[in-house]
Amino acid sequence: MSRLLLNCDMGESFGSWTMGLDAEVMPFIDCANIACGFHAGDPQIMRKTVALALEHDVQIGAHPAYQDLAGFGRRSMAYTAQALQDLLHYQIGALDGICRAQGTRVSYVKPHGALYNDMMANPEQLRAVVRAVAAYDASLPLMLMATRDNSAAQAIGDACGVTLWFEAFADRAYDAAGHLVSRQLPGAVHHDPAAIVQQALTLAAGQPLTAIDGSSLHLHAHTLCVHGDNASSVAAVQRIRSALNGQRA
Amino acid sequence: MSRLLLNCDMGESFGSWTMGLDAEVMPFIDCANIACGFHAGDPQIMRKTVALALEHDVQIGAHPAYQDLAGFGRRSMAYTAQALQDLLHYQIGALDGICRAQGTRVSYVKPHGALYNDMMANPEQLRAVVRAVAAYDASLPLMLMATRDNSAAQAIGDACGVTLWFEAFADRAYDAAGHLVSRQLPGAVHHDPAAIVQQALTLAAGQPLTAIDGSSLHLHAHTLCVHGDNASSVAAVQRIRSALNGQRA
Amino acid sequence: MSRLLLNCDMGESFGSWTMGLDAEVMPFIDCANIACGFHAGDPQIMRKTVALALEHDVQIGAHPAYQDLAGFGRRSMAYTAQALQDLLHYQIGALDGICRAQGTRVSYVKPHGALYNDMMANPEQLRAVVRAVAAYDASLPLMLMATRDNSAAQAIGDACGVTLWFEAFADRAYDAAGHLVSRQLPGAVHHDPAAIVQQALTLAAGQPLTAIDGSSLHLHAHTLCVHGDNASSVAAVQRIRSALNGQRA
Amino acid sequence: MSRLLLNCDMGESFGSWTMGLDAEVMPFIDCANIACGFHAGDPQIMRKTVALALEHDVQIGAHPAYQDLAGFGRRSMAYTAQALQDLLHYQIGALDGICRAQGTRVSYVKPHGALYNDMMANPEQLRAVVRAVAAYDASLPLMLMATRDNSAAQAIGDACGVTLWFEAFADRAYDAAGHLVSRQLPGAVHHDPAAIVQQALTLAAGQPLTAIDGSSLHLHAHTLCVHGDNASSVAAVQRIRSALNGQRA
Repeated sequence: MSRLLLNCDMGESFGSWTMGLDAEVMPFIDCANIACGFHAGDPQIMRKTVALALEHDVQIGAHPAYQDLAGFGRRSMAYTAQALQDLLHYQIGALDGICRAQGTRVSYVKPHGALYNDMMANPEQLRAVVRAVAAYDASLPLMLMATRDNSAAQAIGDACGVTLWFEAFADRAYDAAGHLVSRQLPGAVHHDPAAIVQQALTLAAGQPLTAIDGSSLHLHAHTLCVHGDNASSVAAVQRIRSALNGQRA
Repeated sequence: MSRLLLNCDMGESFGSWTMGLDAEVMPFIDCANIACGFHAGDPQIMRKTVALALEHDVQIGAHPAYQDLAGFGRRSMAYTAQALQDLLHYQIGALDGICRAQGTRVSYVKPHGALYNDMMANPEQLRAVVRAVAAYDASLPLMLMATRDNSAAQAIGDACGVTLWFEAFADRAYDAAGHLVSRQLPGAVHHDPAAIVQQALTLAAGQPLTAIDGSSLHLHAHTLCVHGDNASSVAAVQRIRSALNGQRA
Repeated sequence: MSRLLLNCDMGESFGSWTMGLDAEVMPFIDCANIACGFHAGDPQIMRKTVALALEHDVQIGAHPAYQDLAGFGRRSMAYTAQALQDLLHYQIGALDGICRAQGTRVSYVKPHGALYNDMMANPEQLRAVVRAVAAYDASLPLMLMATRDNSAAQAIGDACGVTLWFEAFADRAYDAAGHLVSRQLPGAVHHDPAAIVQQALTLAAGQPLTAIDGSSLHLHAHTLCVHGDNASSVAAVQRIRSALNGQRA
Repeated sequence: MSRLLLNCDMGESFGSWTMGLDAEVMPFIDCANIACGFHAGDPQIMRKTVALALEHDVQIGAHPAYQDLAGFGRRSMAYTAQALQDLLHYQIGALDGICRAQGTRVSYVKPHGALYNDMMANPEQLRAVVRAVAAYDASLPLMLMATRDNSAAQAIGDACGVTLWFEAFADRAYDAAGHLVSRQLPGAVHHDPAAIVQQALTLAAGQPLTAIDGSSLHLHAHTLCVHGDNASSVAAVQRIRSALNGQRA
């Protein structure tokens, strides 16, 4: 069984404002998606977050976003394909600059917020993102959402020679197509710790989940997206980490 | 006689605003100091400026600045040494990211505006800048101001293993200490094209200039700072380039 | 015949970057749409532009935009109705603050760029804008696009007690519904100075235009949007102003 | 005995980032210094903070700052007197715009951070700030630091017809000149709740404090600066409020 990596958004403080329990969650994850200054993060916070990742031997991913600090990168904005690629090269490069000064490098890319959602909804935008990664360094994997059928995304990745890392969620319900159930709907978010751990174990074992309509849903996920926003989510990460370690033992 | 390189600030447009005649001046220079988004420039403009530099076989320098778009990086701001290094790593990295996507790299660093002035006025700040360059890539030269006595700066560069490229001006008068005469004073700026070309040739030949008090001033300059702001300054660059080419012939 | 006011975007420079021939065009217009710092403009430029408007007895309009300096407010962004109202209050107030220091006041509101387009495309967004103006000062007119049928917009304005000033264009072709023909299509923009002046006179006289499909199009316009981007557009404004003055004589 | 007003910085969250316990501290203060978007705050946060102040019948003060979001307005920046006045008019106006939409108005001005410190250190800068307030609305008081001798500041205020509200601190030690003892020095900050309350009562009673060198220090303070950063500082505000109410009873 290949290992299911835990990825988590990190370095989302900005200037004098703090967000997230980075120090608490870093010991339990494999991949840190580090904000690059356009939705969150600044050069000092990026340096500290990279240092923390190095300390815990965690892979460093660039977490680029639309330029929207006030909206935390959560508002869709119309970028041309070219402007999007420039945006990504700037942000990946900036984080790589911070990494280089600490003797390390960015090792994957995960778009943030509205950029991530737009990329999942629009194949042209996904193509622009994949091309941007390929032009920067085709050896960097791109992290994106696993759905029931990853083939269209995979074809785009393959065409550019970019490895795709599909991610799933342990604390969210899925519909039959393998999309997350909207947070507006009942049952969208799992709150029971045991259910969250079970979903993580099922994904790690490569077994199918049960979608919200009761159908069987096979998600091929390389990584699990976890959260370090608060004490409760950090506790969930710790439980997931323990369970996965036990499963592998 | 070693070659006197012509360096020029480039890529100082922003968003919908245009500044500088980059396309007109690029064919005549050796080194393009490209803005990195903090005082000017944005990812798209950086990409276009890098492409233009590549087209004319011009070296690409990072031109980092304090974070002050509204003030064009010309206002001094108090950064700690650590914050300054993070700022530089971010900006050099960002430009390097844009370069990487075009198969090239940043090849030197020249701080901008108030950051440049503060670095020249304050050895601790120069040390922080030199250390930042060394930590990023000690093979990148740092461009700074030539004065009568470069030894203090040289000692800082040597201590960190960073090459210093000292720059001089063809269109400015110098005082006896080798500092630029303030623009507030009469005679500070040369307007006569012949005088500008002559000062460039004198510097290129390694001959002493005459300071504003009549004393002889020997500046050891590796590069000459030229300007592409308007048609008149571009014409001056063309004349300087022709004269230097003739001198070398 | 009521007077057709000429309105023009002004104060769209930013920091060290200049845009528009404000001083050249100000003498010929009636209403200056002054950028409020979110897509262009900054406090100093706003102060200078207000002073210039006062000098030429030109009405001062707030020209608020989405927060997108890098995109010049031309990219659509998802704001909630509440966030949009806050955005408008902030920007109108900021310009009013600059005005107050010069003994004058904002006298109307015209949204900019993507905010303007979204407001025209989406009645809910228009309602949010109208409500924002009403809450700020219901005596301020709101400037928006004249179409064949202004009644839906008028109903929204009436419901909130806000006067609407509909604007038309002299240099653009219209389709049968009274929308501007896309710039992507042939014939979208009039280049012939005589044709531009004629369209202005026709609008001022309350006569119907000929839409691009040959149909007759009656636009009830209170104001004409003119441009001060370059010498050619300023010349067009001067011709329009002369023709309107002659028509009224 | 005139009443000693409690003032507190409020609305210093930004976008998705939260700072300060505004809702907890608002019931106990008299004057809310509300950030105007340049060091903290955004239009939505400003609207919520104004609403909260209205709910608790708290006076609304504009808390303008240098344009430095990344540095929280704590870094000194060189503004010309004119640029500073424009900066203040923009920010006071912006907050006033938010207030106007809720039927209220800004009622005083307190500069923030480095702008506040620079104004206290440099009479020319204080004059620029006072003139900016006078030009905006000479009926708005300006809040600044009480020292042993307020006469120089008072003369500047008087010359422009601007009322000055001098503020003091209950939790900080003073030197003999009436300046705050640097936080770098021992004894600079009072941690004992009883000592903090006692200093507040002493100031409210118009009695002299004991400076850190043992000398007697008479501060004429109209208002006391309190803090809502965390539970402990909110508790201190509550204790001060109770003690002041008791003193007045």
